[in-house]
This record gives sequence, C-alpha cells and structure tokens, in this order.
Amino acid sequence: MHQDHFLPPAGAFTRSVPIRFSHCDAAGIVYFPHYFDMFNGLIEDWYTEELKHDYAELIMGGRVGFPFVHIECDFKIPSRMGEVIELTLLVERIGRSSLSVVIVCHRDCFERLRARMVTAMMSLETRKPVPLPQPLRAAIESYQQRTALALP
Amino acid sequence: MHQDHFLPPAGAFTRSVPIRFSHCDAAGIVYFPHYFDMFNGLIEDWYTEELKHDYAELIMGGRVGFPFVHIECDFKIPSRMGEVIELTLLVERIGRSSLSVVIVCHRDCFERLRARMVTAMMSLETRKPVPLPQPLRAAIESYQQRTALALP
Amino acid sequence: MHQDHFLPPAGAFTRSVPIRFSHCDAAGIVYFPHYFDMFNGLIEDWYTEELKHDYAELIMGGRVGFPFVHIECDFKIPSRMGEVIELTLLVERIGRSSLSVVIVCHRDCFERLRARMVTAMMSLETRKPVPLPQPLRAAIESYQQRTALALP
Amino acid sequence: MHQDHFLPPAGAFTRSVPIRFSHCDAAGIVYFPHYFDMFNGLIEDWYTEELKHDYAELIMGGRVGFPFVHIECDFKIPSRMGEVIELTLLVERIGRSSLSVVIVCHRDCFERLRARMVTAMMSLETRKPVPLPQPLRAAIESYQQRTALALP
Repeated sequence: MHQDHFLPPAGAFTRSVPIRFSHCDAAGIVYFPHYFDMFNGLIEDWYTEELKHDYAELIMGGRVGFPFVHIECDFKIPSRMGEVIELTLLVERIGRSSLSVVIVCHRDCFERLRARMVTAMMSLETRKPVPLPQPLRAAIESYQQRTALALP
Repeated sequence: MHQDHFLPPAGAFTRSVPIRFSHCDAAGIVYFPHYFDMFNGLIEDWYTEELKHDYAELIMGGRVGFPFVHIECDFKIPSRMGEVIELTLLVERIGRSSLSVVIVCHRDCFERLRARMVTAMMSLETRKPVPLPQPLRAAIESYQQRTALALP
Repeated sequence: MHQDHFLPPAGAFTRSVPIRFSHCDAAGIVYFPHYFDMFNGLIEDWYTEELKHDYAELIMGGRVGFPFVHIECDFKIPSRMGEVIELTLLVERIGRSSLSVVIVCHRDCFERLRARMVTAMMSLETRKPVPLPQPLRAAIESYQQRTALALP
Repeated sequence: MHQDHFLPPAGAFTRSVPIRFSHCDAAGIVYFPHYFDMFNGLIEDWYTEELKHDYAELIMGGRVGFPFVHIECDFKIPSRMGEVIELTLLVERIGRSSLSVVIVCHRDCFERLRARMVTAMMSLETRKPVPLPQPLRAAIESYQQRTALALP
C-alpha cells in the first residue's frame, strides 16, 4: 500500500498524544470521533502556547466562540493503543472572521490522517461572526509565514 | 441568512436525537465531535433495523470492521440543549468494499448540518478490505433505489 | 457466581439503552465512564418526562445546575455491544437542596450495576446551593411514594 | 465553606491535567464523567511510567483487563476551563486479584475531589479473575510502602 511521508516544517506547532485505552474501540483502534476531540485540544494549545492568546480567556472572558463551519478528513493509517502519535497544525487561509487550518497526524514520518478544519469567530451574545481581533490576526499571520510550506 | 430546506425522501431512514446536557459545550451548543458519534449510532441502527443485518453480529461475529476513510461535513445551524434533531441517512455510492453515505441533520425542514462519510469493510484479522457480502450489498442497493433523490 | 435479581417496583421510571459500538472498549465491554453519561441522560429524561419539569428549561432558563456531590457504584455484570440494558431510577432521600437517587442497571431481571448518586441544586450565578422549588419537590416526593420499595 | 487541604506524600505519582473546552458543560465546569476518564488515564500512566509494566502490553499482549468493581467519589470543588488540576494516585489495598486505589484531584493544596476505585484483574479469555502476577504485585507493594500515608 502507498504511504504518504510527512515531515513538519521547521517551527510548526506539534504535540504528542498517547493513544489510550479509552480512545480505542472493540477493534483495538482509535474510535474516529476522538480524533476530532484531539484536534480541538491541539487548537486550544496552539492559541495559548504558540499564539500567546489564552484560549480559555478568549472564550470565557471575550464571550466569543470558534464553531467549525466545515471539516474534511482523510484517514490513512489506524492508530492503536500504546502508540504515541504526533499532531501538527498548519495555517491554510485567514479570512475576515474565519480561519482554515490543516492538522496532520503522523508517526515515524508517515501520515496517519489529515484534516482541514474551517472555523469562524462568533460572538456568543449576537451569534454572528465577528472579525478576528488585530493582535490575534497578526499572531496567526506570523505563524503562517514562518511555517509556510506547499500544502498539497 | 440563507437557510437550506430539507425534506427527506419517502422511506428514508430517519431517527430523532434529543440534544442532551452532555452534548453541549460552555456556549450551550453541541460540541461537534458528538455529531460524529451520533452519525455512527445512526449507521449502526440503519444496518440493524433497515438493512436487517445486525451490526453487533457483523462486527463481533463476522470479525469485520467499518473504519471511515473519508469524512466531510458542513455545519450550518448549531443545535441547543433540549432540542430534538432528526438524522436522515442516504446512500451515495456503493463500491466493491466501500460505501459512501450522506447524513443530513435537520429540524423543522431546515438543514442543520450535512456529512458525507466513506467507509470500507475491513477484515479484523488481515486488516485488508473485504468485498461487501452479496446479501448486504443487495440490501444497500435496494435501499438506495427506494430512497433515490438528487443529492446536491 | 452469585447474581442479584432485580424487579423494578410498579411505576418506576425505566428506560432502555442499546449498547453501541462507541460504548465499548478493546475488551468488547462498556467502558465505565459511559455508564455515568447514561445515568445523567436518564435523570434528564426523568425530570422532563416523569416529573414534568423540563430539564433543559431548568438549566438554561432557571440558571441552576445539578452538580453531583457524591457517587458510588457497584459493577456486577459487564455489558456487551448489541445488548439492550434497562435503567431504573428510584429516589432514596430528598433534602433541602439535595437529592439522592439510586439507579439500577438490569437485564432479564438480573442487576448489572447499581449506583447511588447525590446531587445538589445550585445557582449558576451565586454558585451556592438553592432549595428545591416547591412544585419540583412535590413531584419528586410523589414519585418516591408511588415507587417506594425497600432499597437494600 | 470548609475546604480540605491536601499535600501528596513524597514520591506519590502525580500528573497534571489541563481542563479543556471539551471537558466543560454548559455551566462552564467539568462534566463529571470526564473525571473518570482522566482517572483511567492516570492509572494507565502509573502502570507504565511508575510500575514499569506497560499497560497497553498487559491488555493487548497479556489478554487481561482491569474492570472496576466498585467506585466511590466525593466532589468538593468544581474545576473550570483553563485551570490545571493535579491528580495523585495512592494505593489503599492489594488483594489476590484486586487492587484498591485512591485518586485525589487537587490544586493549590486543596482537594477538589477524591475517588476510591477497586479494580480486579480478569482474563479476557475466561472472563474470570486472575491473580496479580508476582512482579506486578511486588511493584505495587513497593509503591504503596514508599508513598504510605494515613489515608483518611
């Protein structure tokens, strides 16, 4: 079977996730909705640790949310209990209030799955999109530039 | 805002899901990975109740699995605690060992979200795709024909 | 092995839950935190359907919550994918702002697990306990009386 | 309100868990079944990192499981998104095939919740209890001795 190599660009935000008993189904592989939960956690950590915008503070203090408007995901290699996988976040496109990221799950330089996730910043009060605040936008643009690579 | 009408075709497999406290996040709307869990439950019920192939028996007895190879989803209207949403399953394409379904989540004739999910039948022993057994294939084709509608 | 018989008292609130693929772990049995999620769903339905106090409305409209202060649970027989289990709710004790319920999970008149769960009604604004409103208390007392049985 | 101080004994196995968006409910606090999932993860890490018995290898290779037979938990202080909580595991009692552990969740030296969880080692083949293997038992006894404290 063809396998896709993946090497994260220098400076890309990558976190390790151990595959736990609770992630796995009766076939012993990760039950797929758990991946989306891992991706959400990665995005949270990226805001807080890489962009230096505390995610909890944005949500609870700023009264905004980041609901997803579109998700697509290709599953290539299943992951099993006891493995440690790597998740890398790359920025694809920054809109006025929307943000498109690519998350690659990999191990030993092989892609296991790849997701494209489009989110929009929304006011929890008005339930309407709000523009990304300028300091947050600048931080995202800077990250995008320093980790740019030809996304397939 | 533009909203998409949706009326399930006659005979389409539809189940109601009450939005529970446990589905909702701090913004009071469904945390998105829960939708994928609901979709998996819908597919289980469709196998067992509509296709008359017991899903648990397929998995545990037949030693096969149905991992997803591709998922895409458009989120249009959020759902809130206490609402009851409808999930309708339609068949898009039947391959040799793969199956592509569309799941539409709707309420009061408006689409809330729409997913396309491609699965492949796999042996749990060899971890390779296996062809859909003929009786199961026949049941899926029959369902597809009697619920055919122009999928956008 | 000794097994405990269980027959719910007449009028007791009981709901069926099908054990799904997503409930089960690599050993093919329910991963235990899912039981607590099922119990929370049972309590929601009990408020809404039996006590006629809409749970979502209480939480979202009334700005109260029902956090648990104490839980204990004995696990007796594991449950497997494809089984349908029954959950029965009984009231043990009604306090000023607290409520102690017993939830018995059973199948074919045998107990599978039994939990005692103590909750307290809290204001989401002040984060302090609030007394159970009189109509809700009356509904719980009435339910307790008509389903009374010698709880072991 | 009275609050319980907690200082883990020297050498006790403690792990930090950041409270994520996905842990929290519509009231902004951790939805309680997630605690039990965190506890299971802590026990996994304790086996692998502290006892030097790889948990995934025990389960998948050894064909044993560790189902819980009894759980009790007191919830004292809720935890909110963005907080980091500490989980400490202590051994209460080692039986022939059973193990009773206490897990204390704390932050800033105050207890937030405390659970007692009794598990039994079971063969996945025979579904009967099996005695703890001697090297595992020795590792648990050694841990218990070096972290002994008067458990309340």
